[in-house]
Amino acid sequence: MKKFAIAVLCFAGLMPLASQAQMKPEDAIKLRQSAMKLIGYNFGSIGAMVNDKKPYNKDEAIRNATRVEQLSGHPWEFFVAGSDKGETKAKSEAFKETDKFKAAADKLQAESAKLAQVANTGDLAALKTQFGATAQACKNCHDNFREK
Amino acid sequence: MKKFAIAVLCFAGLMPLASQAQMKPEDAIKLRQSAMKLIGYNFGSIGAMVNDKKPYNKDEAIRNATRVEQLSGHPWEFFVAGSDKGETKAKSEAFKETDKFKAAADKLQAESAKLAQVANTGDLAALKTQFGATAQACKNCHDNFREK
Repeated sequence: MKKFAIAVLCFAGLMPLASQAQMKPEDAIKLRQSAMKLIGYNFGSIGAMVNDKKPYNKDEAIRNATRVEQLSGHPWEFFVAGSDKGETKAKSEAFKETDKFKAAADKLQAESAKLAQVANTGDLAALKTQFGATAQACKNCHDNFREK
Repeated sequence: MKKFAIAVLCFAGLMPLASQAQMKPEDAIKLRQSAMKLIGYNFGSIGAMVNDKKPYNKDEAIRNATRVEQLSGHPWEFFVAGSDKGETKAKSEAFKETDKFKAAADKLQAESAKLAQVANTGDLAALKTQFGATAQACKNCHDNFREK
């Protein structure tokens, strides 16, 4: 079983990360960008709905808001030592002002959790309001910790 | 409120995707690769635990298995028309043999859901077994639909 599982992992191309005690900075950068990209996609879809760019679909809004909530907790573990350099727009402040950065990350997670709650009610006006609050949490963090 | 939300979206760099009725093939490729990369990270972490490459941590196993379950439903909407070309390892079969591809994707989602269930029990031996079954679902799909 063990050998089989390792063989499958190697085949799937997953073993390099799995066997690293400390991920490489370039892998960390790609992983946090992956999480941000998916957050942007799902959040943008809700933005299109609340801004009349595409039809409101309650099920899709719930699915995508839930994804945003789930993904909003994901990027932060990838801001590892050494990943302030390389193909990244992260400002050095993200690695220095860690308390402030964590507070901004926590704010996003809190607003995203509310977004998912509101999406589940099916109240489009409330979704629009909470979309704005969540977008503000994105913006606040980008303002302080991301190059334009 | 509306203008504010749009302004924030633009600032956050999310508007291009949000305003597209049909996503560009290159964006779709990056999005599915992002989902796969995060699946690989979280699944690889569980693989490291069940293969004694790092200490078993029940809470981390639950968190990461839950992420795998959630993310396992995500890549498939990004296999849009035109995204069979470009910076992708997807085989053309993924776009032609759509029933078979969907069955492979469904299998991954089913095994990932079981993985999250098993992680929640805290039974490491059972987690190892279900990790193997989930890895097999990865492999089956990669065998048929992804270039090596």
